[in-house]
Amino acid sequence: MNNFIFLGGDLRFIYAASKLNKTHDCFVYGFDMIHDDTRVETGVPLLRQIRRCNNVVLPLPVSVNCDYITAPYSSEEMPFSSIVKAIEPGGTVYCGKECPALREFCEKRDLTLIDYFEREELAVMNAVSTSEGAIEIIMREQATTIMGMNILITGYGRISKVLSRYLHSLGANVTVCARKFSDLAWARIMGCSAVLLSEIDDLLSSFDTVVNTVPAQIFDREMLLKLKSDCLIVDLASKTGISDMELAKSSGVKVIWALSLPGKVAPITAGHIIADTILNIIAENEKGGEL
Amino acid sequence: MNNFIFLGGDLRFIYAASKLNKTHDCFVYGFDMIHDDTRVETGVPLLRQIRRCNNVVLPLPVSVNCDYITAPYSSEEMPFSSIVKAIEPGGTVYCGKECPALREFCEKRDLTLIDYFEREELAVMNAVSTSEGAIEIIMREQATTIMGMNILITGYGRISKVLSRYLHSLGANVTVCARKFSDLAWARIMGCSAVLLSEIDDLLSSFDTVVNTVPAQIFDREMLLKLKSDCLIVDLASKTGISDMELAKSSGVKVIWALSLPGKVAPITAGHIIADTILNIIAENEKGGEL
Amino acid sequence: MNNFIFLGGDLRFIYAASKLNKTHDCFVYGFDMIHDDTRVETGVPLLRQIRRCNNVVLPLPVSVNCDYITAPYSSEEMPFSSIVKAIEPGGTVYCGKECPALREFCEKRDLTLIDYFEREELAVMNAVSTSEGAIEIIMREQATTIMGMNILITGYGRISKVLSRYLHSLGANVTVCARKFSDLAWARIMGCSAVLLSEIDDLLSSFDTVVNTVPAQIFDREMLLKLKSDCLIVDLASKTGISDMELAKSSGVKVIWALSLPGKVAPITAGHIIADTILNIIAENEKGGEL
Amino acid sequence: MNNFIFLGGDLRFIYAASKLNKTHDCFVYGFDMIHDDTRVETGVPLLRQIRRCNNVVLPLPVSVNCDYITAPYSSEEMPFSSIVKAIEPGGTVYCGKECPALREFCEKRDLTLIDYFEREELAVMNAVSTSEGAIEIIMREQATTIMGMNILITGYGRISKVLSRYLHSLGANVTVCARKFSDLAWARIMGCSAVLLSEIDDLLSSFDTVVNTVPAQIFDREMLLKLKSDCLIVDLASKTGISDMELAKSSGVKVIWALSLPGKVAPITAGHIIADTILNIIAENEKGGEL
Repeated sequence: MNNFIFLGGDLRFIYAASKLNKTHDCFVYGFDMIHDDTRVETGVPLLRQIRRCNNVVLPLPVSVNCDYITAPYSSEEMPFSSIVKAIEPGGTVYCGKECPALREFCEKRDLTLIDYFEREELAVMNAVSTSEGAIEIIMREQATTIMGMNILITGYGRISKVLSRYLHSLGANVTVCARKFSDLAWARIMGCSAVLLSEIDDLLSSFDTVVNTVPAQIFDREMLLKLKSDCLIVDLASKTGISDMELAKSSGVKVIWALSLPGKVAPITAGHIIADTILNIIAENEKGGEL
Repeated sequence: MNNFIFLGGDLRFIYAASKLNKTHDCFVYGFDMIHDDTRVETGVPLLRQIRRCNNVVLPLPVSVNCDYITAPYSSEEMPFSSIVKAIEPGGTVYCGKECPALREFCEKRDLTLIDYFEREELAVMNAVSTSEGAIEIIMREQATTIMGMNILITGYGRISKVLSRYLHSLGANVTVCARKFSDLAWARIMGCSAVLLSEIDDLLSSFDTVVNTVPAQIFDREMLLKLKSDCLIVDLASKTGISDMELAKSSGVKVIWALSLPGKVAPITAGHIIADTILNIIAENEKGGEL
Repeated sequence: MNNFIFLGGDLRFIYAASKLNKTHDCFVYGFDMIHDDTRVETGVPLLRQIRRCNNVVLPLPVSVNCDYITAPYSSEEMPFSSIVKAIEPGGTVYCGKECPALREFCEKRDLTLIDYFEREELAVMNAVSTSEGAIEIIMREQATTIMGMNILITGYGRISKVLSRYLHSLGANVTVCARKFSDLAWARIMGCSAVLLSEIDDLLSSFDTVVNTVPAQIFDREMLLKLKSDCLIVDLASKTGISDMELAKSSGVKVIWALSLPGKVAPITAGHIIADTILNIIAENEKGGEL
Repeated sequence: MNNFIFLGGDLRFIYAASKLNKTHDCFVYGFDMIHDDTRVETGVPLLRQIRRCNNVVLPLPVSVNCDYITAPYSSEEMPFSSIVKAIEPGGTVYCGKECPALREFCEKRDLTLIDYFEREELAVMNAVSTSEGAIEIIMREQATTIMGMNILITGYGRISKVLSRYLHSLGANVTVCARKFSDLAWARIMGCSAVLLSEIDDLLSSFDTVVNTVPAQIFDREMLLKLKSDCLIVDLASKTGISDMELAKSSGVKVIWALSLPGKVAPITAGHIIADTILNIIAENEKGGEL
């Protein structure tokens, strides 16, 4: 029977443990500094001492510099070696964004290392949180309703697929720009206008809000200058799509670069998604991958 | 040819004048205290002296105590008598939420008084702003996504019709409770669950968020105690639906009583709606009411 | 305890009885000519002889000329007097589209007569069946997809509200034309374009399909001639909206006047809606109308 | 400058030529048997004699046995060698579903052969036609409304993505079953229930309609027997998903195996999609693939 110890991480991991705890024994370590009146779903024991389980769950990101486990609520630092005290021989280590030193650490000790952040279903579900976060930003920043707003979304990956549909449902005039004709076809089927990235220039002056989801500097000087002076840019890409942030500001455009929204806007959901993903991995392994 | 002078009001009325200005000459008076760097759509003259037009537009609400015209950006008070200097004989006064003294004032002087706030289309369009505002509140307050959230909406008037559809589109499990079977039928057609108000009690413990749109105290002590302790109540009704606000708080339920959202969340849109409504009134009058 | 005997009607009434039978004893009379291999939900006894219940359910429409009960599957005619043998003293008669002779018949005998066809929730639910039927007709008749089709819907009553939303979801460009500004506002909120009936003329040549829901001849000669020559008109109104059917045909426009769709496209659902409506009436009466 | 001659094919190719003709000179050959009163979009010359263009467009499928060009409206057979008379040296041949003999034929003559049927955007757009066709079948065959119907869709490819969204919008309770957790996540985001294919068995008895989109025999004997006896199966897969068609019939389940719906339900749209796809190919080639 599988049991799990969660080492470190932020509140999301208490929610993750709490959800996983419904079907598997779970323990949490590394939260001794949590404030007593933090309202968190409980039912999962917050340990003061590490105990041994056959699975260890590490946070997301597991580590900033690939040295210590991220543990903002722990009074002491947690090196990777803490894992040794927490795991049964031959156990499995789950982490978010694995790094070379951790990989090496696990291989040396015959531990299986699985990166839940690589799972497609987690990325898909996080696109929902990111989209809701983007909508909240637009609502907060703009003095008009989303209904009737002219919105450009660049790219047509996971986030754009969810966000374009949401904004269309809320009555915005959504234009998706992308490079592939099949993406344009999908965007149109979902109720949006769709334009090739190479043909977006002439339309730029018509948008009230631009949401960038492409991690490449597609908004160069000239494009920025074509935007309305009171245009809002919400940049959701891991690398900003704006080539010249100073120029953007000086031309009046407001840029909000919003990173890591899932953990910020919906930490409980973010935790539950991690738990669900671990459950999926377990189910796949039990059935040999074929479901 | 119609021209319009706007007396007093908040920023919405500059946006309203600005939109109306596209088809009719418009002037704005009562904004001498507006800050120079307030970014507002312009193109409409902000007068320092009242001039005479054949239409006067008064703010919403036109007056708090039915004495002075609401004019937060004016350095001097504006009694109803200011209207005299602003209007041609036989002109029309548009206002939001008329009051007896103003009615009397206009009748005495043979001025036509029209309350744009009574127009159904204005109320319908404001339901969009209110719904977006409610969604923003839920997103900000809750630590889960709207997708998957169990939400109860009481009542099935304008706001509920728009909000239930929006929340359904965002993936919430929406339950509408109302008194009429035909309302339940409509809510189901729009993708929601629907329950008679008299049968909601047993379901109360399942909701993460409750949105009240009924201006009557339908949430009594017993009902409040049946809610989840971390339930969020967003009360959109002009009279709160919560009988015992203290009890709600002491039981952990968070209540946000959100009034007058349209002007707060989307002042530009609110102004445009007022302008559109005035245009509709003019069109109806020109064609004798039959369109 | 309530029990029910259904007299006459088409297959819908077997489905209605069958659903009502889940909570109340039901019997059906007047189907001796039904073919043995007609596949109908059963579980409800098809009687060869009338028996007495405290409720009688009559069909929709209850009678064509207000003389005999509609009974297409009965080998013998059913005069209103058949009701006498079927009902307990002081019982309730449910019917669809009551007529004066039946009303008089019931009053004389102290029977309560209730017309379920007058109930708003039945009309609302039937709008779903009608809308689905209209979509099936458009799909069958047109050689293009609904996605991308330019569709005009006249009127904004129940059917139009459901149908416009469905067609919008299927990717059509839907324009609603109506007389009230508030209807235009609602149609826009639901994702459609909206135009005053008085301003539709100039747009007529752009539509591939026109759906009329207004029981008045709004399409006069001139309007018909402005339509595309291969335009399809689906007329859902009880009185056709086309003033000159010959002209329409001679100009190439195809007109399909589709009446009574609910019973045709979804007889099982139609029966269930009637049963649900009767259950609602009972619930209201038990609680004194206040729910 | 590009010009195009269309050889053979059914009516879709007249519509395709007609659309392409708006930007490029187009000619059609192989329709001498077309009935005079067939109403087709015209404006494109139907030739009685082949003329030479720098592009030849062949039908879909280009050939049944990879010998003659499909030409149901031509009075004489069209061998591949007809292409010689129709194309300039170094020209491009567009076809749907290329076959080895045609590939060899073109290579020998230094003609570029492009299969438009391989293009992703064409497959995506055809999924709309297929989905509309499936909805029409369900509406025609079922005696209940789609609203409230319990529908299972197997697979989550292009057709399932469009169809599940449409049926959800029409108020069905849609369950998607698939093998990948990320597909289940997407289906849930789109408002559907989602189940692993390996866990569908227990739910089978709850569906009124099953739509299969998987070209593999996933419905074995046991699964068929678990379906409701009046369940409708609409099989949209190129290879039927039903292992034992006889069994299905004998157990009362109605199976409709619907192939090649796009050309049947919406031939005009099908033609336009082919034209759009050829335009996309040209645009890509002009810009060197990078758009």
